[in-house]
Amino acid sequence: MKATLIREIFKDTASYENQQIKVQGWIRTVRASKAFGFIELNDGSFFKNVQVVFEENLSNFKEISKLSISTAITVVGELVITPNSKQPFEIKAVEINVDALADLDYPLQKKRHSFEFLREIAHLRPRSNTFSAVFRVRSIAAYAVHRFFQEKGFVYVHTPIITTSDCEGAGEMFRVSTLDFHNMPLNEEKNIDFTKDFFGKETSLTVSGQLNVEAYAMAFRNVYTFGPTFRAENSNTARHAAEFWMIEPEISFADLQDDMELAEEMLKYIINYVLENAPDEIEFFNNFVDKGLKERLNLVVNSEFGKVTYTEAIDILKNSGEQFEYPVEWGSDLQTEHERYLTEKAFKKPLFVTDYPKDIKAFYMKLNDDNKTVAAMDLLVPGVGEIIGGSQREDRLDILEERMTAMGLSKEDYWWYLDLRKYGGVKHAGFGLGFERAIMYMTGITNIRDVISYPRTPKTAEF
Amino acid sequence: MKATLIREIFKDTASYENQQIKVQGWIRTVRASKAFGFIELNDGSFFKNVQVVFEENLSNFKEISKLSISTAITVVGELVITPNSKQPFEIKAVEINVDALADLDYPLQKKRHSFEFLREIAHLRPRSNTFSAVFRVRSIAAYAVHRFFQEKGFVYVHTPIITTSDCEGAGEMFRVSTLDFHNMPLNEEKNIDFTKDFFGKETSLTVSGQLNVEAYAMAFRNVYTFGPTFRAENSNTARHAAEFWMIEPEISFADLQDDMELAEEMLKYIINYVLENAPDEIEFFNNFVDKGLKERLNLVVNSEFGKVTYTEAIDILKNSGEQFEYPVEWGSDLQTEHERYLTEKAFKKPLFVTDYPKDIKAFYMKLNDDNKTVAAMDLLVPGVGEIIGGSQREDRLDILEERMTAMGLSKEDYWWYLDLRKYGGVKHAGFGLGFERAIMYMTGITNIRDVISYPRTPKTAEF
Repeated sequence: MKATLIREIFKDTASYENQQIKVQGWIRTVRASKAFGFIELNDGSFFKNVQVVFEENLSNFKEISKLSISTAITVVGELVITPNSKQPFEIKAVEINVDALADLDYPLQKKRHSFEFLREIAHLRPRSNTFSAVFRVRSIAAYAVHRFFQEKGFVYVHTPIITTSDCEGAGEMFRVSTLDFHNMPLNEEKNIDFTKDFFGKETSLTVSGQLNVEAYAMAFRNVYTFGPTFRAENSNTARHAAEFWMIEPEISFADLQDDMELAEEMLKYIINYVLENAPDEIEFFNNFVDKGLKERLNLVVNSEFGKVTYTEAIDILKNSGEQFEYPVEWGSDLQTEHERYLTEKAFKKPLFVTDYPKDIKAFYMKLNDDNKTVAAMDLLVPGVGEIIGGSQREDRLDILEERMTAMGLSKEDYWWYLDLRKYGGVKHAGFGLGFERAIMYMTGITNIRDVISYPRTPKTAEF
Repeated sequence: MKATLIREIFKDTASYENQQIKVQGWIRTVRASKAFGFIELNDGSFFKNVQVVFEENLSNFKEISKLSISTAITVVGELVITPNSKQPFEIKAVEINVDALADLDYPLQKKRHSFEFLREIAHLRPRSNTFSAVFRVRSIAAYAVHRFFQEKGFVYVHTPIITTSDCEGAGEMFRVSTLDFHNMPLNEEKNIDFTKDFFGKETSLTVSGQLNVEAYAMAFRNVYTFGPTFRAENSNTARHAAEFWMIEPEISFADLQDDMELAEEMLKYIINYVLENAPDEIEFFNNFVDKGLKERLNLVVNSEFGKVTYTEAIDILKNSGEQFEYPVEWGSDLQTEHERYLTEKAFKKPLFVTDYPKDIKAFYMKLNDDNKTVAAMDLLVPGVGEIIGGSQREDRLDILEERMTAMGLSKEDYWWYLDLRKYGGVKHAGFGLGFERAIMYMTGITNIRDVISYPRTPKTAEF
């Protein structure tokens, strides 16, 4: 007999009623008296468990009664609808076989564990309720991203991970090398001789695929990347990881307005898709992690996002009467407290802030006619602050070159990026969504370490 | 007026007949006489161009006649069905505006360029027919992978890129570091003091997500990874890249037989999806890159894959009467020439070779009862040889530990991997498909550098 997945049973319980079926899974709990017992069984295909009832007529009744948590078993039994019980149905076992025992020192016993402790057993934590919900939502959300863009005909581009350029000019990058660290080759000037390295030059891990994918937007019009990116920032916060995934669409024949429309449509699509395809998980988060979660997600899905310029936002903040920790001043970047005031109190909905001062934004953003601001946008959402950052790109070769010179970037290093402006470089725009931030937002989980399978942060790269 | 994508026009030409529409794109060619002219326009949304006809009644007729290749324009005009022409329809322009000019030194002029030359302009090559086809197929195939697994309820796991373990025990890895290369910190034993490094220990780029994802298979039953992997092999061949993407499913309550069924189903699904969703691109490859392509793909889709054990395969090769460059001997790995003989001549269809000698396979593969072979499988396909490699995993703790000791691996380094065998570690299996190899197979492109947006190979990490 072929095993039935627990997901299938929940999806179409009626068709299994009074049928004999086979299920396989891992024991979450066993409770047994002398005459009968109950097993909560989870097979990983679904958030919820099935209840298995077993009685003393089983030849191995005693053995089964004593099975430890996480033991893997195969159950053959009849599915019985139980309208008066907590669970909608149960399986009356006629046969239970043990596939793989679990040692009694299994660390995930049935009690509440701290998230800190669970990080130390990152290889086991997806077996817990919370983390099975987190990582199923993560998987479903990742698929939603692909569905959204592919249904719109966007081309998915795998931009390189190993790179010789530094997209943001930020410099906080991991170096990639095969040189012998004990015996570094030096050139005549006594500098490290990177011509001896694997790629014949200095290479690092990418901080963004944007520059690379802009070239593809000039070929396919609408494109996106979705892959890992890296920051060697030594910041041990709940919102920073050294390795995270990023979604970066890039659209041609498009300006900042088009960019914001796309961002709004995408975010609503992903949230809707998760609400529809992980209802049990979202319910769980709403009950046990963040009571306001569903309300907040529904607000995002059902509101038309607001828009305000950075300059207007500064005025609103100045006139708010609020006491902020960081001063509000035109020319400074907005802090999370400012962002949250704007989206949570001033506008009470998701909010695009546009046209930031050029000096606090990247070189590739399109200079506005006022010569002081650039066509950038950040999307702020209640409960978090910034979740998306994007811009129209500078498509005028001369102004782009001026900006690069002003920021100390070498034209030679970016020859191919400048080429894009020489050969039919139409107006184009794009944005980046940090995937983990989005997952945190959709689950209510507040530490980025708890939405990454095996998180990499300063001094931590376990497993 | 909103622009219409060329893809939409080809999909539903009738509904645009005699309508005034707006299209935007890049010029592939212009031909003009004194009275009228033709533009082949491509907007990146579709493989094919539209033909735009313009006449001297346009106020900027002369300017348009002289536009250079790759100039971006916006055309307003009437769509006219042309049943007697090469192209099914054309657009009679009433207005053409230039969005962005292309310099005359645009390197992709209308002539045949070598693939080697095109690699030097990797930022422009997706604008050519061949590479627009390659990278659209790549995008569609990537989506097919996700669709296949998500429709089956598999959970997508982002396994870490930066790692402290070496999955294959191979050692050909890139090191990741933020140490100051000019001034390496040393510890008391005069070794590099990696406690000073970003992660507090030696880290590298992953060669496989398998070990990490096995932990998730014990939580979700069926899971997969799809992400970049790295090999610092100094091999400059047409089939090796230092950075490539890999698909690695892992299934629980499953043996080698289940693993092969999944591999066969997945490969057929991806190929079918590409055949259905990129018919023009596949037609192009079949006409201009590899005449036997469609026949070969249809063979894969329509045949039941063969199965043979490694031991039987050795006998077949020994009795083949073929002169092989490499000797055929039980205990040695199969070479590409052997693999191709088996799949192309002996079986004439895709072929699983199973149960390889343990000494030429990885430590985590399940030891067979003969004590000499492991439950491994390679899938060989005509025209290429090996495309998938997989195995049932060793789920017996004691035997796994023995194998690790024999291969010089430290149990302490793999404590968490061994844990998986202690706590309900059911039988499980998985495989890896190199995504670029699959794209090469589906396009007929013979160099891996031509299916990667910006390839990374020894001494090459441009763009």
